[in-house]
Amino acid sequence: MLAPVKVGILGLGTVGGGTVHVLQHNAEEISRRAGRGIVVTHACAKVLNKNHPYSTDQILLTEQLTDVVNNPEIEIIIELLGGTTIAREMTLQAIANGKHVVTANKALIAKHGNEIFAAAQAKGVTVAFEAAVCGGMPIIKAIREGLAANKIDWIAGIINGTSNFILTEMREKGSNFVDVLAEAQVLGYAERDPTFDIEGIDAAHKLTILASIAFGIPLQFDKVYMEGITKITSEDIQYAEELGYKIKHLGLTKRTKNGIELRVHPTFIPNKRLLSKVEGVMNAVMVESDALGQSLYYGAGAGALPTASSIVADLVDVTRTLTTDPGNRVPHLAFQPNALVDLPILPIEEIETSYYIRLSVLDKLGVLAKVTNIFSENSISIEAIIQKEISSSSDHVSVVIITHQVLEKRMIQAIQAIEKLQGLIGHVTRIRLERCA
Amino acid sequence: MLAPVKVGILGLGTVGGGTVHVLQHNAEEISRRAGRGIVVTHACAKVLNKNHPYSTDQILLTEQLTDVVNNPEIEIIIELLGGTTIAREMTLQAIANGKHVVTANKALIAKHGNEIFAAAQAKGVTVAFEAAVCGGMPIIKAIREGLAANKIDWIAGIINGTSNFILTEMREKGSNFVDVLAEAQVLGYAERDPTFDIEGIDAAHKLTILASIAFGIPLQFDKVYMEGITKITSEDIQYAEELGYKIKHLGLTKRTKNGIELRVHPTFIPNKRLLSKVEGVMNAVMVESDALGQSLYYGAGAGALPTASSIVADLVDVTRTLTTDPGNRVPHLAFQPNALVDLPILPIEEIETSYYIRLSVLDKLGVLAKVTNIFSENSISIEAIIQKEISSSSDHVSVVIITHQVLEKRMIQAIQAIEKLQGLIGHVTRIRLERCA
Repeated sequence: MLAPVKVGILGLGTVGGGTVHVLQHNAEEISRRAGRGIVVTHACAKVLNKNHPYSTDQILLTEQLTDVVNNPEIEIIIELLGGTTIAREMTLQAIANGKHVVTANKALIAKHGNEIFAAAQAKGVTVAFEAAVCGGMPIIKAIREGLAANKIDWIAGIINGTSNFILTEMREKGSNFVDVLAEAQVLGYAERDPTFDIEGIDAAHKLTILASIAFGIPLQFDKVYMEGITKITSEDIQYAEELGYKIKHLGLTKRTKNGIELRVHPTFIPNKRLLSKVEGVMNAVMVESDALGQSLYYGAGAGALPTASSIVADLVDVTRTLTTDPGNRVPHLAFQPNALVDLPILPIEEIETSYYIRLSVLDKLGVLAKVTNIFSENSISIEAIIQKEISSSSDHVSVVIITHQVLEKRMIQAIQAIEKLQGLIGHVTRIRLERCA
Repeated sequence: MLAPVKVGILGLGTVGGGTVHVLQHNAEEISRRAGRGIVVTHACAKVLNKNHPYSTDQILLTEQLTDVVNNPEIEIIIELLGGTTIAREMTLQAIANGKHVVTANKALIAKHGNEIFAAAQAKGVTVAFEAAVCGGMPIIKAIREGLAANKIDWIAGIINGTSNFILTEMREKGSNFVDVLAEAQVLGYAERDPTFDIEGIDAAHKLTILASIAFGIPLQFDKVYMEGITKITSEDIQYAEELGYKIKHLGLTKRTKNGIELRVHPTFIPNKRLLSKVEGVMNAVMVESDALGQSLYYGAGAGALPTASSIVADLVDVTRTLTTDPGNRVPHLAFQPNALVDLPILPIEEIETSYYIRLSVLDKLGVLAKVTNIFSENSISIEAIIQKEISSSSDHVSVVIITHQVLEKRMIQAIQAIEKLQGLIGHVTRIRLERCA
């Protein structure tokens, strides 16, 4: 058997510790598969958790990143620094030193992946990033390799566990967003600053990567439309239930004849669809492709051990291709670098979807007639209308409308016109609705 | 760009035709990914469907299998002959000729895989078989590569679409088995001779393969416990609904401290579990592993294009490793050939599971007391009992019991004792129940 592959790790926090733990705890399983051992020989860590479940006896610890990145013995660097500044520098330096890199850093890949992959390509090394999308789920491998025969039509995914946990709790307990967010923070499912998760930024990072490997387009994080879950109310969740839907925070990317849709937002999904059954912190990605049809991948999207699972799978893959001619490795973005196509990304106004619309009006039939008129003028066809008295003492009613598919810009126009109507109370609530996801 | 890889195909039936269609229709996508073309240059077909959607202009057609298998120009053979006699011979001959083989033949791999992989190993070629398990779902890749970091604990899968279709229809329409089977045959979801599907043989082929790649054990089809869906009644399906379960035909393989469970049978699954939501002809496989936890893979388990999707994915993988040192390829059974471990397969008497038990008794409290006594004597603990009058005019009642986990041999003993009781009408119905799947 060959000597073990030597790995250096940048960052021994939760995920780094989990990775060392998995490599040590499952060393036998891993080398039975890989045909040789994979060991962490060097690690850079500012602070070391004394209660970690792994041994640092065989690991040379340092506080200098460059001690690891420039060490000639190390063949693969695991980048777990977070952020995009030092992480980018260290990744590029590792590449320049001829080392392969495994990373769980979705922001790094979404924002600097084009540059990083070009550098890796030029140097003939691999940058592997399974752990960057949906933690432990092997979704990158499934799409990049498992679906290699397919033209992919769309991807719809629950790709942010925090948002899915919050929406699940809001529905099951009837609680409001703020309370559930606080609960999620106590449980460790949401960060102290939860912006990345609840505003859709984290999901947008992942969707950027999924769209590139699905359609063979460059990474374009700045073109993702982003909407988080902060405005979802218990009222909307209740209406969803009544109408046979669930509200899920989805990342959606779709190939259309005009370009690629690339959007992250709360979405009504019919109760019958499998994605609507994915609860709590779990992630799931549905892919529609021409040969296979619909396929779904489900698993833990975060956590130390699930993320370590993907990192170590990448280590095994990289180990197997150490002696492979770089041209025969799986390309970083699924398609050969010279075969990427710069398809246009559609602005949100140009996407097509259905809608759930909720408005509060004074109890006048006239308002409803005007609303349906405005829809009709904007070629928006209505699938269902529900009208509900808020309470017997109140003089206004809630009107809920489900529409068929329409261009978003028409809906924007319609909402602008509706919001000018006399008799409308407050703003119009608009949540996109997807029937196929 | 390199010249296209030349592929020969044995059998141009539904799946063969689908494969040629996908390779032609998605030629651009495929070569953008693989970095070179993949073309079928030779095919052996006894009868050719004139209405197929692909072109045979560039394909040399022959009726002699050996014309394809012995052709020195061909690098990869796709084996789609079905059966295990000629298919085995041709596969071994292709290997002997130094060709890689891609197959969708689950019986061939389950029964002769050990011999075939040993021959391939000796010759330094690959035999790829993603299409042999669950059609288009990339489940072999997910387990063999995606979960490489994990110790796998168990796999539970809906891996026979025909059985799942029949059970779904029986539940949704309240129909009985025989009628739905006839309907499935008309729709093309069941074969004229449906034995392989409804008796669990097809599922057992797939489970044999899944167990090997999960645990690193040799293929042992003859040790799979098999039970089909032919004895499932509408009555049991109705009780399942009432109790909050669905009946699914599962393939189950589990690592226990005494050995490996390897079993295929109808199973009660709690309604809350994702597997219980998988309906119709779709397949889904849940995997429990130590680092990732639970992950699920869902997709079309049969059909020309889904199966072609896996065959072509294998072609791309094989193409990428044509120049790879064989020792660095992904091992056939996930673990290095010299690292397989011959863990004992448990006989069905030694497996541990929960049970749904239904019996019909004359309306005497005494019988029920004796039944609970027998369970207690066999250390079987009862979770729930339901007693139902069949009708007001009838003098017997149906008793349904849900048990906790127990060794199967204890349940066999208990049932034997119960069937000797006076007051029992007919036989005891016993369906295994899994809470975690």
